[in-house]
Amino acid sequence: MRCDVLAVGTELLLGQIVDTNSSWLGENLAMHGVDSLSQVKVGDNIGRITGHLRRMLGEADAVIMCGGLGPTHDDLTREAIADVMGVELHLDEDVADVIRHLFSSRNRTMPENNLRQAMVPEGATIIPQTRGTAPGLICPVTIETDAGPVERVVYAVPGVPHEMREMFERAILPDLQQRSGEQWTIASRTLRTWGESESGLNERLDHIIDELEEEGNPTLAFLASGWEGLKVRLTGRAPDEDSASALLAPWEERIRGVLGDQVFGVDSDTMESVVLDLLRSRGWTLGLAESVTGGLVSGRLTGVAGASEVMKGAVVSYASEVKFGVLDVTEGPVVTEEAAIEMAEGVRKVLGADVGLALTGVAGPSEQDGMRPGTLFAAVVLPEGEPDRVRSAHLRLPGDREMMRQLSVISALDLLRKRLLES
Amino acid sequence: MRCDVLAVGTELLLGQIVDTNSSWLGENLAMHGVDSLSQVKVGDNIGRITGHLRRMLGEADAVIMCGGLGPTHDDLTREAIADVMGVELHLDEDVADVIRHLFSSRNRTMPENNLRQAMVPEGATIIPQTRGTAPGLICPVTIETDAGPVERVVYAVPGVPHEMREMFERAILPDLQQRSGEQWTIASRTLRTWGESESGLNERLDHIIDELEEEGNPTLAFLASGWEGLKVRLTGRAPDEDSASALLAPWEERIRGVLGDQVFGVDSDTMESVVLDLLRSRGWTLGLAESVTGGLVSGRLTGVAGASEVMKGAVVSYASEVKFGVLDVTEGPVVTEEAAIEMAEGVRKVLGADVGLALTGVAGPSEQDGMRPGTLFAAVVLPEGEPDRVRSAHLRLPGDREMMRQLSVISALDLLRKRLLES
Repeated sequence: MRCDVLAVGTELLLGQIVDTNSSWLGENLAMHGVDSLSQVKVGDNIGRITGHLRRMLGEADAVIMCGGLGPTHDDLTREAIADVMGVELHLDEDVADVIRHLFSSRNRTMPENNLRQAMVPEGATIIPQTRGTAPGLICPVTIETDAGPVERVVYAVPGVPHEMREMFERAILPDLQQRSGEQWTIASRTLRTWGESESGLNERLDHIIDELEEEGNPTLAFLASGWEGLKVRLTGRAPDEDSASALLAPWEERIRGVLGDQVFGVDSDTMESVVLDLLRSRGWTLGLAESVTGGLVSGRLTGVAGASEVMKGAVVSYASEVKFGVLDVTEGPVVTEEAAIEMAEGVRKVLGADVGLALTGVAGPSEQDGMRPGTLFAAVVLPEGEPDRVRSAHLRLPGDREMMRQLSVISALDLLRKRLLES
Repeated sequence: MRCDVLAVGTELLLGQIVDTNSSWLGENLAMHGVDSLSQVKVGDNIGRITGHLRRMLGEADAVIMCGGLGPTHDDLTREAIADVMGVELHLDEDVADVIRHLFSSRNRTMPENNLRQAMVPEGATIIPQTRGTAPGLICPVTIETDAGPVERVVYAVPGVPHEMREMFERAILPDLQQRSGEQWTIASRTLRTWGESESGLNERLDHIIDELEEEGNPTLAFLASGWEGLKVRLTGRAPDEDSASALLAPWEERIRGVLGDQVFGVDSDTMESVVLDLLRSRGWTLGLAESVTGGLVSGRLTGVAGASEVMKGAVVSYASEVKFGVLDVTEGPVVTEEAAIEMAEGVRKVLGADVGLALTGVAGPSEQDGMRPGTLFAAVVLPEGEPDRVRSAHLRLPGDREMMRQLSVISALDLLRKRLLES
């Protein structure tokens, strides 16, 4: 099964919006065993849209069109599909009612052009709208080939990413699977890791990767995701959900056996949600002392809803005198392991937190205290009475100012995570 | 002149990398008066690459190919171009020497496959490499049409964005301009604004937009950029640089006349760099008290190199007891205008800063102190002795937790900016 993607919209060609839809579709089609071998962006021009669509249907079993379903005269996807199908558009009264209701329920007058979104090519099936005003379409097309007429299908979805994704999962994927005659269920499991590069992981998992490649199912993929860590994803297919999950379990166990506590979470876990959960389960609150990261660690932890149960707050001691005066750090060089430990201890006291986490370092462009850009000292201090309550680390991080700061955030959170796991 | 874009790489189709190159090229081609009417992603398959390239050359005067110039057997751009040109590849000794030198200068052994990057189609011109190991290519192609043979050109550049952009500006754009016979210089001026929606700006600039559309040169574009603000960009073309700039000046003045201090900067200015500059020029230091934003304002300000001259630091008073105990806020509800003012005054004293900026609000998902998600109180307190030294604001911001927090950051910085402009 091959399903190509046609993204419609002049704004995509002009770089006003980056087309992330086709990448997302490519990834999700591949996960379900469907090839996407060519993906095209075209502007709001009926001749060029139909030209591409006809050509793509000559090569692929299916085409997903994203965008061009809105209410204005620039929205030409419906017209293009009707043209290629060789049929007329008609007003679908059910869809029109939904659109009218959407406006009246908000006490707004509906501009008449909104009914363009209820126009449907003869023979097409509606994918009912649940979020926006435009429904999606499933359009069977017969094309002539040297071997005689063949059946193809065109799917149309809105260009708004969350509407597109929802319709893909709800309607397009099941339809594609039915047409391909393959009734596979796909299960995937993402192990979130930190502490090693992609090539490092690759080397350590070498023998497992070889075995997986021989088996062919499940498959393994690495996805480097910056300060979200490095994802190791297993994807397997089986006749039903239980056997798909069962297929992944032994492989996950073997990978975990190799990677150990480098795996910080699974699927939608994040480093910050994992750290907050570990603290919450121990009944401990957290205070942060940040210098080089300037508040980014705290900003990220407080991005998690419910963080307030655990987070007391932070002191961003950017100026040295704030380290000395507020956090009671000993006067002297401030990019040192000792300074990091004193910052963590100091912030515990100032904020009345159980656990302190501190970062000091050099983001660049210039040196500080004789330390090169990329230098990070991080320290964790646990509540008094805990054994081995101080943990610190000295890291050298790559990248420019921005990247160094981002890697500092996840590295320090990972130091805290590992220390919490031990207690 | 029409120049389409062909992005090569299976990783683009699988969503492992999002193709941002073609959007960037589309934007930059448009700025220089070149149409880009179709942009295609294709995998590492020689038949499909040449198929797309041939078809695209039938429609466009030029095609820029991004990616597929590396050293491995999957890198097929050179082969595809030679095939379409109907010529052989040969080893360019100068390019080979540069590659060999690159490895020897780092004391590394060069894997032999790196010399694939020195293979050049007969008749192509090299775009010398300055950053990576792969040079770019300028390849004239003659294609047959119904009206006889016509001349086209294919440009090949690496897929690494910064290498691609550098080669585009240095070699491709001048070559395209020479071929089109148009010797225009393009000047652009971006006004960075905050405080009004795109449709609001559109309405207020209505008469200027009408006049610009009638003139046709310069052109005006709006680019909504989240917490980077809303950009208003003038782009004009003229025979030389001085007259291009002179063309923009009166329009910029008129737009500034309408928008006033909503314009916070130009071109590469950011809200945080502008605020830091205003503080620096007054010789004032800054301390932040953040609650709802949890450190994001501080994190963003300290992202600017040299921020340490101005930034003392921040107290992230996420827990109410930190507001009361550390910042000396009066006990009671903390999502109020009074609390924001007390936080700003308190953080000035705690950090020894001249100016205090504070934010308190509700990011959601649930209410706090009877206030709805989206509520923001921000306050600025200037040094003692300044007239009218306290300024505060109550805002209602849209969006989910993440968006509300981001909009809070730029809104609070803008409050500080406007207050500083008055003093």
